[in-house]
Amino acid sequence: MHALIVFAHPEPASFNGTLKDAAATRLEALGYTVEVSDLYGEAFDPVEGAAHFADRQDPDHFAALAEQRHAGQKGTLPVDVRREIARIERAELVIFQFPLWWHAQPAILKGWFDRVFVNGLLYSGSKRYDRGVFRGKRAVLSVTTGAPETSFAPGGRSGDIELLLWPIHYSLNYMGFSVLPPFLTFGVAGHGYRYDDDQEKALRLNASRTTWEVRLETLLQEAPLPFPGWNDWDEAGLPRPGAPVDGALRFRTGRALQ
Amino acid sequence: MHALIVFAHPEPASFNGTLKDAAATRLEALGYTVEVSDLYGEAFDPVEGAAHFADRQDPDHFAALAEQRHAGQKGTLPVDVRREIARIERAELVIFQFPLWWHAQPAILKGWFDRVFVNGLLYSGSKRYDRGVFRGKRAVLSVTTGAPETSFAPGGRSGDIELLLWPIHYSLNYMGFSVLPPFLTFGVAGHGYRYDDDQEKALRLNASRTTWEVRLETLLQEAPLPFPGWNDWDEAGLPRPGAPVDGALRFRTGRALQ
Repeated sequence: MHALIVFAHPEPASFNGTLKDAAATRLEALGYTVEVSDLYGEAFDPVEGAAHFADRQDPDHFAALAEQRHAGQKGTLPVDVRREIARIERAELVIFQFPLWWHAQPAILKGWFDRVFVNGLLYSGSKRYDRGVFRGKRAVLSVTTGAPETSFAPGGRSGDIELLLWPIHYSLNYMGFSVLPPFLTFGVAGHGYRYDDDQEKALRLNASRTTWEVRLETLLQEAPLPFPGWNDWDEAGLPRPGAPVDGALRFRTGRALQ
Repeated sequence: MHALIVFAHPEPASFNGTLKDAAATRLEALGYTVEVSDLYGEAFDPVEGAAHFADRQDPDHFAALAEQRHAGQKGTLPVDVRREIARIERAELVIFQFPLWWHAQPAILKGWFDRVFVNGLLYSGSKRYDRGVFRGKRAVLSVTTGAPETSFAPGGRSGDIELLLWPIHYSLNYMGFSVLPPFLTFGVAGHGYRYDDDQEKALRLNASRTTWEVRLETLLQEAPLPFPGWNDWDEAGLPRPGAPVDGALRFRTGRALQ
C-alpha cells in the first residue's frame, strides 16, 4: 500500500507537522510506503493562471479549464502539476493535513485543487463522481482548529464543522475518491501560540495524535461518507425522487440535512 | 458612498471581468466612488507565511496568528495587506467577483482572506460577528459557475450552492459585515470556452449582467442574510435554547437547515 500526505502548514514544527510526521511513521510501521507533498516546503504556487501555460490554446484569452485541457492533451502541463498527479496516482490513500483558516483550507492547498485536478485529463462531464478517475482511492482530511469543539456544533459560534468541510469533501467526491470521515483536532492554537505552551494543551494534543495513530491502523476498513451518484440524478442534475439530498453531512452528528 | 470590488479572475476579458466593469460603471452612475482590488492584475500573493514578516515575534517558530497580531501592533504589516485593509475601511459596500473553482473561491481570493483579515488588528475573541470591526458595511458575493442552475439545487449534481458558499459567507459574517444574498450566474463557461461562443449563451449572460446592474440600484435597501450573534450562544459557543441553527442558508430556497 502507498499513501500520500498533502501537507499545508507554513511551520514544520507546528502541531500539523507533528500529525503529518506521526502519520508517516505509523503508516510505514503498518507496511505502507509514504510520500509527502509539502506544499510550503516545496513552494507550491497555488495561483492558477496564464503564467503556467507557455503553449496556449488561445494566447489572447485565458480560460483556465480550456488551457488545462489543452495542456493535458499536448503533454505540456507544468512540471509541478505533473509531479502532484503522479503522486496521487501512486497512492491508495491520500491524507490532507492542514489548519482550518477562514473556514476552509489555506490558500496554498485550495490552489492545489485549482491546478492539480486538471480538466479533461482528470475529469470531464462524464468522468466525475462515482465515475471519477480516482475511484478506488481513499481520501481523508486531518484538520486542526483553534476554537473548542463545542463551538463547531450546528448553530455554534465557530460554524458547523460539517458545513465548513462540505465543499472540500464534495471536491474529493467529484474526483471519485472515497471520502472518509475527517480527523478533527480542536483547540490547537487559539491565538497562534506554540501548542506546547501549557501542559493541559500538550496532554490534549498528545491524546489527539495517539487517536490518529490508532485510527490509521483501520482506515482502510472504514465506511466512506455517503454521497449521491449518477443514478441519483436526472438529466438536469436534479435529484430523482427518493435520492439522498444530505450528501456527506453525517460524520459527526448522525443527522441528515433535510 | 464608496464601494470596493475585489476581483479574482485571471482574464480581464472574461465574463467575470464584464460583471466587474458593469458594476463599477453602474455604481458610479448611482453616485458611488468605486475602487477595484484586481488580485490577478496586482499579483496579490495569497500564501500566508514567514516570508511576509521580517520583524518576527518568534523567529524560530512561525505561527500565522501570532505574527499577524505582532505585526499589527508594531505597524510592520506587509504593504499589500495594509493597502487592502485601507480599501475595505474606505468602503461601505464590498463586492467579491469571482468564478466558483472547486466548490469555493479561487486560491488567490482565499489567500486574501488568510492575509488581509489580520488577527488582533481586525478581530479578536471579543471583536467578532455582530461585534466585528466591519459592522455597518455590506458585502455581497457575485459568483459565476459553469454548470446549469438546476444542478446546484439541494441534492443536485453540482452541490447545493447554499452549502458551497456557506464558509465564505460565514467568514464575512465573522468580520462583522452584513452579508447580502449572493448574485449567481450559472452556465457561464461549462468547459472553459469564451462566454460569447454561441448566441444563446451571450443572450443569457447579457440578461444576467442587466439583472446585476438593476439590483445594484437597491443593494443598500436589501435585508442581509440572517446569522446568529453573541446573544444566541452560551459560554461554550453552543446555541442557546431557541437560537437559530440554520445561519444564512436561506437565500435561495427559503428552507431552514434543520
